[in-house]
Amino acid sequence: MPELNPPPTLTELLDSIPPLDPLARQRACARLDRLTKPPGSLGKLEHLVADLAAMTGQALPRVDPPAVIVFAADHGVAAEGVSAFPASVTAQMVANFAQGGAAINVFARRLKARLEVVDVGVSTSCAGVAGVAVDRVRSGTGNIAREDAMSQDDVQAALNVGVRAARRATDQGAGCLILGEMGIANTTASSALLAAFTGLSVDAVTGRGTGIDDQRLRHKREVIGRALARGTGRTALDTLARFGGLEIVAMAGACVSAAASRTPVLVDGFIATVAALAATRLAPGVRDYLVFGHRSDEAGHGEALAALGGEPLLALGLRLGEGSGAALAYPLLQSACDMLAEMATFDDAGVDAGQ
Amino acid sequence: MPELNPPPTLTELLDSIPPLDPLARQRACARLDRLTKPPGSLGKLEHLVADLAAMTGQALPRVDPPAVIVFAADHGVAAEGVSAFPASVTAQMVANFAQGGAAINVFARRLKARLEVVDVGVSTSCAGVAGVAVDRVRSGTGNIAREDAMSQDDVQAALNVGVRAARRATDQGAGCLILGEMGIANTTASSALLAAFTGLSVDAVTGRGTGIDDQRLRHKREVIGRALARGTGRTALDTLARFGGLEIVAMAGACVSAAASRTPVLVDGFIATVAALAATRLAPGVRDYLVFGHRSDEAGHGEALAALGGEPLLALGLRLGEGSGAALAYPLLQSACDMLAEMATFDDAGVDAGQ
Repeated sequence: MPELNPPPTLTELLDSIPPLDPLARQRACARLDRLTKPPGSLGKLEHLVADLAAMTGQALPRVDPPAVIVFAADHGVAAEGVSAFPASVTAQMVANFAQGGAAINVFARRLKARLEVVDVGVSTSCAGVAGVAVDRVRSGTGNIAREDAMSQDDVQAALNVGVRAARRATDQGAGCLILGEMGIANTTASSALLAAFTGLSVDAVTGRGTGIDDQRLRHKREVIGRALARGTGRTALDTLARFGGLEIVAMAGACVSAAASRTPVLVDGFIATVAALAATRLAPGVRDYLVFGHRSDEAGHGEALAALGGEPLLALGLRLGEGSGAALAYPLLQSACDMLAEMATFDDAGVDAGQ
Repeated sequence: MPELNPPPTLTELLDSIPPLDPLARQRACARLDRLTKPPGSLGKLEHLVADLAAMTGQALPRVDPPAVIVFAADHGVAAEGVSAFPASVTAQMVANFAQGGAAINVFARRLKARLEVVDVGVSTSCAGVAGVAVDRVRSGTGNIAREDAMSQDDVQAALNVGVRAARRATDQGAGCLILGEMGIANTTASSALLAAFTGLSVDAVTGRGTGIDDQRLRHKREVIGRALARGTGRTALDTLARFGGLEIVAMAGACVSAAASRTPVLVDGFIATVAALAATRLAPGVRDYLVFGHRSDEAGHGEALAALGGEPLLALGLRLGEGSGAALAYPLLQSACDMLAEMATFDDAGVDAGQ
């Protein structure tokens, strides 16, 4: 039996991102100025809820319930020794996510958020690991120091992994997506992508990831330089194929899907921001649906944010990934929405407005 | 019948603030480094939970449930026209708090926090307003441009209002106090206090409060200058008597009481930080129990924070008071505690530690 409403193809999705709703924003802003507080005195929270109104098309926007999706995959370039951790840790951490023991599990539980872990291409397949959604494109990427991460067909497939995961979340009513990642060596891929997308130098976009020393940082930069020397790609798809990784591409796909359904994406740190940047290179309209959760300590995150014009809500010196910074920022979105919906107006409360 | 355990006097409280617990901190830090994350990768959250361990004396600290206390009182100096709002707004906003319509109500509901509004000296008594705890010292303060805000006996009484309110909260199990305030013209009193405590210039400590224009700001500075010209006080009690306000003194009393019971105080913006500073001038040990929630846009807040060596968790451009910035920061304390208690260790999860 054919599906009655087949999901849109990726090409259709990329072309279907709706513009922001100026009327919803206008109505939200008009209400903000009638609430029992000095005008503008809730600072960034006021801008935030106006943005959420424009994204969702609701004058009183809601972001509940949140959904966290953590995409995991391996990187061939880990073989170059660019990380403080061995590649085997990707699969070990996926098992940790599945058992609820990682930071993102703890933060998601506090938010009562649905959390899905997706194996997009961990080297040792997570098929059979309870609690992991297995939607694999391939087993890890190529070593970008000497070969492409994947084919352009693989990029399309990984984008669709992200689209499917995002749709599973929004089909269950998610009002906001928090995207996280796990993949040893994925700051190396992200730095290469960021350099390719922006033309910035390797030094400007490369940091210590999970905490490498000076010597390994020099080596990591040299490896990224070699990857970029093979060419940076003529299109966004080409660039993603050259540098990967599978989980980064899947996050970009999830951003596209969320934007197409007017669902705000709460962007985490360096890798998530590079994935969001990639999504905007595929479909510029994605930018309108991004909220930035946390300014990471990872060198390069500032450059990635600047490329998107993003200003994060938090700056707590995190450098963990997994979606942790975005999850910590999520209560601010809830409170911004609550504020607009629940505060009394000057008229309601019989409070004199200022002079 | 005499009380079996009479509450300690204020003098006893000031002398009874326990030192931080270095062993609890040490145990928390040791566990932090075994959790499944790169060492230090949760940034300020790691420092925060170590601080909370030292405060509470628990290696796995808990801050739930939170309690919000909003102290309200009027200021005689409002007659000088230093605020954008008329003094009548203090009582109107207390009614709004009692009805659940203010920003702090909305944020406290999201936290499932107990919220108590205390009338310490609103000009028109809130006796009979349902939902307001009436514990009045006097009806507003004197106009500090030409007289003392209150007597030193009034200061003692207002400190005890704060002590009683804090004890009501901790007696009901509060694990963290969020202190807020309402009092038209209370940034004027706070600026005068801050100048008196630190020796800083009027210009350095005075801002726009709820949003006054340039002309009124010049006038406000001139009024604060007149108040300071009457003398800044030889003791902390004397300084508080000169400048007030009743709600600020009560907040200081609540800080002292919380510190004496090892309960962390989550400090809000400018006025709350000045109240916390006043508390440390009464009992330096209070400083150990302060966590700073939000860096306000109010000029002078940076100076007040610097005087305490405080670094807030958030910087969202709020300038509302009521405890709003502290309430918004509270989920970070919860998540920091959750993280330490609930994350798996490398050994538990069978994850390889880094090299």
